[in-house]
Amino acid sequence: MNKEIIKKRIKAIRQLLKKQKIDCFIITKPANVTYTTGFSGEDSWAVITAVKVYLLTDSRFIEQAQGQCPYCQILERKGRMAELVAKLIIKLKSVKKIAVEKSTSIADVEQLKKSVKARLAIVANIIESVRTIKDDSEVAAIEAAAKIAGKVLKQIKRRIKPGITENELAGLLDFQIRKLGARNSFETIVAFGPNASRPHHQPGTRKLKKNDTVLIDFGVKFKNYCCDITRCFAIGQPSTLYKKVYTAVEEAQQTAIKKVRAGVKITEVDAAARQVIKRHNFPVYGHGTGHGLGLQIHEGPVVAAKVRGKLKAGHIITIEPGVYIPGKLGVRIEDDILVTDKGYEILSRTQ
Amino acid sequence: MNKEIIKKRIKAIRQLLKKQKIDCFIITKPANVTYTTGFSGEDSWAVITAVKVYLLTDSRFIEQAQGQCPYCQILERKGRMAELVAKLIIKLKSVKKIAVEKSTSIADVEQLKKSVKARLAIVANIIESVRTIKDDSEVAAIEAAAKIAGKVLKQIKRRIKPGITENELAGLLDFQIRKLGARNSFETIVAFGPNASRPHHQPGTRKLKKNDTVLIDFGVKFKNYCCDITRCFAIGQPSTLYKKVYTAVEEAQQTAIKKVRAGVKITEVDAAARQVIKRHNFPVYGHGTGHGLGLQIHEGPVVAAKVRGKLKAGHIITIEPGVYIPGKLGVRIEDDILVTDKGYEILSRTQ
Repeated sequence: MNKEIIKKRIKAIRQLLKKQKIDCFIITKPANVTYTTGFSGEDSWAVITAVKVYLLTDSRFIEQAQGQCPYCQILERKGRMAELVAKLIIKLKSVKKIAVEKSTSIADVEQLKKSVKARLAIVANIIESVRTIKDDSEVAAIEAAAKIAGKVLKQIKRRIKPGITENELAGLLDFQIRKLGARNSFETIVAFGPNASRPHHQPGTRKLKKNDTVLIDFGVKFKNYCCDITRCFAIGQPSTLYKKVYTAVEEAQQTAIKKVRAGVKITEVDAAARQVIKRHNFPVYGHGTGHGLGLQIHEGPVVAAKVRGKLKAGHIITIEPGVYIPGKLGVRIEDDILVTDKGYEILSRTQ
Repeated sequence: MNKEIIKKRIKAIRQLLKKQKIDCFIITKPANVTYTTGFSGEDSWAVITAVKVYLLTDSRFIEQAQGQCPYCQILERKGRMAELVAKLIIKLKSVKKIAVEKSTSIADVEQLKKSVKARLAIVANIIESVRTIKDDSEVAAIEAAAKIAGKVLKQIKRRIKPGITENELAGLLDFQIRKLGARNSFETIVAFGPNASRPHHQPGTRKLKKNDTVLIDFGVKFKNYCCDITRCFAIGQPSTLYKKVYTAVEEAQQTAIKKVRAGVKITEVDAAARQVIKRHNFPVYGHGTGHGLGLQIHEGPVVAAKVRGKLKAGHIITIEPGVYIPGKLGVRIEDDILVTDKGYEILSRTQ
């Protein structure tokens, strides 16, 4: 990880910590540990003070940490993580306000309280809020993941023939991802025909028919960063209804994407997609219009009705409206969009 | 899920709750929700009282919950989970001591305290301790998962040829698992040659050579239950060292397995494997000799030095000693063993 990038992140986090007078921040959420240290192993916490970043891990990951985090002080845990934190804090002396992330388990919080023997502030959204604004390295990583996803889709489309099951197609797709040196960012959804009307359908044994429809919702994780893409298409002759629905969803997605720009209210983008679906007289989807993504497949900002706030340059969000008609069909189209001052950039241009 | 099975589980859990005078137990850990309700979806909590089991989930999973949990009262959450719990508790009236699982996030605990307006006891290992003793349906599920793993291994062995990369082999293996209608229980480890000396090696771009060695550590998840198997073998001509190491590890594993029986001290099983490795003058492995498995890939009991306690009939544990010589080789052999009153049953008999 580039030193300047990490420095910039830590600086932004320290500014938020300063506002709350926190001079020692214990980070337990894996994605936040990765973000602040560059470390991608398991079983690790980070501690940020006004002058240093510490990575706490066990013996299995020390070698990896030394390679990935030259800008951190690496501490090896032998007993409990909380005990190592306590030892560290005793050495720090000047620390007054210690905080821990809200996602930490009550078990760990209790252990920390016992070991550290100090009041702990419980805080949320410090690192998460910094993470919503992607730096260049993150944009490049998500774009690279989306590029791999595009290749995978192209390769997989040749293999989609009547008789293949949802499960097989999902397996083939995952295998292609792996062949290209990447991983899934979540469990691949493949739904044929009416199965696509359930947004969270799990691939099963249904076989593709001669005239049928396919929904693929999948993501690639590459260099720790996720993309998230949904494509729908017909095999053989699609029904008139399917064609109409597809056109409506496509229009809804394009309309919402065109709204994207730094400073635009999130609700405006959400409403833009829903209005198109409504105008076409199809049922409006129950899920959000999109979500941020990055180190995690779901992170801020959420793009949905009733969400306050505006888009900012550097947000990367999905735009994924859909139409679901139980027993008949489901269509969703999803792309990953970078918000810029001038408008947007589609990171997931695939065939 | 069979009614009698769920009833038996709930009865065992209620006995433990009674000892601590808990009359309302809030369950937030996904595997524990599955165990007590049969539900396998996401975003769900369960609540156990002296007379009822409630499943709390959101609209996406109501249909699935109705199918999977006919013995629970299903409640749909619209706002926060904690608020729904609060509403439920108001209705319950006679509740005196409310407890929540220790793995719950501090965020959820705080929300619960605010909504429920009552003291919350924080408890650990209630359901986990019941879960260590597998019932017949669980033994059958793990055996079924292991059977699939055996088939996968057989199929995959035909495809292992010089030139294939670790990453490709891992991908092929995962694809076979999927083709058989199952999933991975954790990320597959494939390590060629000296790479196997790192117990947590991630498959990479190393290609298999003409004379080379393979370590595969993988698991199948079937009907929510996990198996966990490691196999090592040579391609072409193995070195004398490799053969010696393999023989030692095999002997260590067999010796430990033969110790397994209800009533035996866990440390005895652990020591049995280590003594064999020591006697062969190879370095003794730094990890545990095994772990329980079931709904999760790692659960109780841990089989390691310094672990108090005895094996019980119904425990299912891995036995997985290894020898690791950095820069040279790594060998680990792992099987899944059911503890019985008379001794043991190997659930993962594969080729």
